[in-house]
Amino acid sequence: MLRLVPLAAGWLLPVGPAVPRLSPARAWPLPYSGFLPGRAAAGSAGGGWRPVLKTPKGTRDHPPAHTVLRDRLLAAVVTCFKRHGAAAIDTPVLELRETLMGKYGEEAKLIYELQDQGGELLALRYDLTVPFARYLAMNKITNMKRYHIAKVYRRDNPATTRGRYREFYQCDFDIAGQFDPMIPDAECLKIVHEILSDLQLGDFVIKVNDRRILNGIFAVCGIPESKFITTCCTVDKLDKVPWEEVRSEMVGEKGLSPEAADHIGEYVQLHGGLELIEQLLQDPKLSQNKLAKEGLGDMKLLFEYLTLFGITGKISFDLSLARGLDYYTGVIFEAVLLQQENEHVEEPVSVGSVAGGGRYDGLVGMFDPKGRKVPCVGVSIGIERIFSILEQRMKASGEKVRTTETQVLVATPHKHLLAARLKLISELWGAGIKAEMLYKKDPKLLKQLQYCEDTGIPLAAIVGEQELADGVVKLRDVATRVEVRMPVLYLLLKVLPKCSGC
Amino acid sequence: MLRLVPLAAGWLLPVGPAVPRLSPARAWPLPYSGFLPGRAAAGSAGGGWRPVLKTPKGTRDHPPAHTVLRDRLLAAVVTCFKRHGAAAIDTPVLELRETLMGKYGEEAKLIYELQDQGGELLALRYDLTVPFARYLAMNKITNMKRYHIAKVYRRDNPATTRGRYREFYQCDFDIAGQFDPMIPDAECLKIVHEILSDLQLGDFVIKVNDRRILNGIFAVCGIPESKFITTCCTVDKLDKVPWEEVRSEMVGEKGLSPEAADHIGEYVQLHGGLELIEQLLQDPKLSQNKLAKEGLGDMKLLFEYLTLFGITGKISFDLSLARGLDYYTGVIFEAVLLQQENEHVEEPVSVGSVAGGGRYDGLVGMFDPKGRKVPCVGVSIGIERIFSILEQRMKASGEKVRTTETQVLVATPHKHLLAARLKLISELWGAGIKAEMLYKKDPKLLKQLQYCEDTGIPLAAIVGEQELADGVVKLRDVATRVEVRMPVLYLLLKVLPKCSGC
Repeated sequence: MLRLVPLAAGWLLPVGPAVPRLSPARAWPLPYSGFLPGRAAAGSAGGGWRPVLKTPKGTRDHPPAHTVLRDRLLAAVVTCFKRHGAAAIDTPVLELRETLMGKYGEEAKLIYELQDQGGELLALRYDLTVPFARYLAMNKITNMKRYHIAKVYRRDNPATTRGRYREFYQCDFDIAGQFDPMIPDAECLKIVHEILSDLQLGDFVIKVNDRRILNGIFAVCGIPESKFITTCCTVDKLDKVPWEEVRSEMVGEKGLSPEAADHIGEYVQLHGGLELIEQLLQDPKLSQNKLAKEGLGDMKLLFEYLTLFGITGKISFDLSLARGLDYYTGVIFEAVLLQQENEHVEEPVSVGSVAGGGRYDGLVGMFDPKGRKVPCVGVSIGIERIFSILEQRMKASGEKVRTTETQVLVATPHKHLLAARLKLISELWGAGIKAEMLYKKDPKLLKQLQYCEDTGIPLAAIVGEQELADGVVKLRDVATRVEVRMPVLYLLLKVLPKCSGC
Repeated sequence: MLRLVPLAAGWLLPVGPAVPRLSPARAWPLPYSGFLPGRAAAGSAGGGWRPVLKTPKGTRDHPPAHTVLRDRLLAAVVTCFKRHGAAAIDTPVLELRETLMGKYGEEAKLIYELQDQGGELLALRYDLTVPFARYLAMNKITNMKRYHIAKVYRRDNPATTRGRYREFYQCDFDIAGQFDPMIPDAECLKIVHEILSDLQLGDFVIKVNDRRILNGIFAVCGIPESKFITTCCTVDKLDKVPWEEVRSEMVGEKGLSPEAADHIGEYVQLHGGLELIEQLLQDPKLSQNKLAKEGLGDMKLLFEYLTLFGITGKISFDLSLARGLDYYTGVIFEAVLLQQENEHVEEPVSVGSVAGGGRYDGLVGMFDPKGRKVPCVGVSIGIERIFSILEQRMKASGEKVRTTETQVLVATPHKHLLAARLKLISELWGAGIKAEMLYKKDPKLLKQLQYCEDTGIPLAAIVGEQELADGVVKLRDVATRVEVRMPVLYLLLKVLPKCSGC
């Protein structure tokens, strides 16, 4: 008799005395002898197979209008990163599982793992920070300012209307190296400020805190060091739920005493600017804690630099900011867009985080065989959420995006002129001009002009028998319908290279 | 006693009467309570854990110098695709396994599969063609000219020195739609010709064939239809091994008769131009075969269009070209670079394929619930191999690539001027100027100028106490050491925006 051994969800394998079989990894794909006309797709379990036409849960295709808008957005971000002197790197989407292991704390369960198909155990990258740290350690780089724009993967619950996907772009800028305190940190905040201002997304605030301050608070509230990270995770929820809920999670789930929780509550509900930093530096308990004092001192320095950058108006020192990831060791920050919910509400409402980052001085050392540290600070721009906002704005405005850049359509008004079209378009391409033609032997002129209108091509270069005989083309402005005859060479060298709006 | 059940390679799971355990998927990651300073990375099996510092087999990081070169290369390819009026799309790296199933024939074993972590069964895309077909069918698009530049994944034996990786870029251009014969096909070949010419990679040839002609040959040589695909795969090896080896695989492994193999051999060793097409159209056997006749007729038309494009000099009708993938149904092509091995050898030697593609009229229909076909033809540019060639060339020439675009370094010659530097750099950034400064409070001027030389920054804007008092900066040309004092506003608005070479 067969026994069934439960494996990962969804797999039940028969285990019997002598049942030859394949592992799940090997069982697929079913033998397939290739595509033959008229034959249904293989892999079907006995006919009736229907293709499931979808992308994986939480992922999406980007049609041309998306891609154009996204490329513009990414170009704006890259422009800023380059303005700050960063170099670009790229790393594989795949990493060894052990590279990602132990870097993300509770979030590690969201990592996509690859099937063991023999060889190394692999996973999809979860962010660009851990691969960057691995890259630095592997290449023994102790000093680098880099940006990296690429997709990352998280088996999260997707909320696609709010721009939360399982496959999404991250746009990261990081500064690695041993430097004087808070100078690179201030630049990261400056970058966030520049990008959000450039993109004209509306009002925003950049919340700033420091892990050392949080840990100092936990210490003076009597929390044991072993519970710092988990308490941090609970505090992190304060931007979504009220203090009462956070408190009850602390006491209930995390096992803190009610007094300790209340004490933490007094601190983490504070936010302000330089005056709050000064106040906490005078706090009788906190000022006695080494970590907190260091963090507060650096926070003061940071505000000094941000004042010189002229951006403190958008910065809030917010003690509730904790950030989910484990690897932060110092300054942390997060930018949120503000939105007047309606005219009668005075307090702006947060519509979610669009950038975040912080200092992680220990991560590179986790990869170095001798544990040598390379201090790092970096920022990640939440391009997907920003994209959602821009997309909605675009929809609302009714603006139509052109998805191609074609300057001219090569057209013919009569039959039997395909050869003339092919010759002319070849000359246009040769001159670097963006040109299209319809893939029909004898298309109607009206269809050709209609194609220009549908796709936004501003000009049509028309060759009829007369033009062919005279060695000229008729250049038509599609919008105004004005037509001008001119020699081909004139069109190639003078008109099209300078044509505005195309 | 425990019994061990072999699963996929590398896993031996104990199976006993009542041994509670986790599946491999669930066993990782080990519980981890977060990063704490001074603590070794978690996930270690009882101390002694050493990080393995590598990227997965067959993948690589791209350092800045790579990325700059690659971005230039991709930009050249995109320029060509846009010149031909293509719109860009993007699709997820992940696809449902069943989307990829039964599309790649024998190559399907190279697909990367994801672990079953609950939910859908996923795999990494193997190329950009199948996702494009899925996209067309899913969105009911019957007419589209698109390009897609993205990474694909194959568990192939990597040959990294020759630019063959497990993660690599594909640059695809495809035309989908019902059109008149060979017009879009000719454009695809034109695109390959333009890109390879633009990149100045040296001499090349584009081999062209047609699956219908190959199938016609197999038919007249007495091969049963069920063996067409497998015979095709064997013929495909002719570019790497001599005919004798191909023949012995046909007879030995594939079970063809020696006579049939010899007969095939007479055909597939032919290559030429229009005259060969004419000759085969007169071939007493082949001209009787419907498929072959269709293929040869279209090949003649293709050559007519390519003559109008003026590119037949680089085109070879080559009956040995078969292409590995199953989904091709008509014209197929492949571009190879030619290289004089040395001056005494007259025949140029092929150094490998740098582009390939063909017509696949059945693939979209495999995804459509009603089997509705959308004819497609497309080309894929082998950017990785081209990149390897350009990289080698760069190395040989000793040319150094600048990896950043910084125009000016903000520097100070004395101590206690950090505030002045922060203020000035902020103004520069605000004016859109690419500027850097060292992240030290009081760096030595020499160190700052050295940084400019090391990273290729052409200018230094120096503010000393005197400049600060006078409201000017000293602009220094790093190469010539010439210094000019000027008002900050003049620097911002007049000098830097127009500065050549930066």
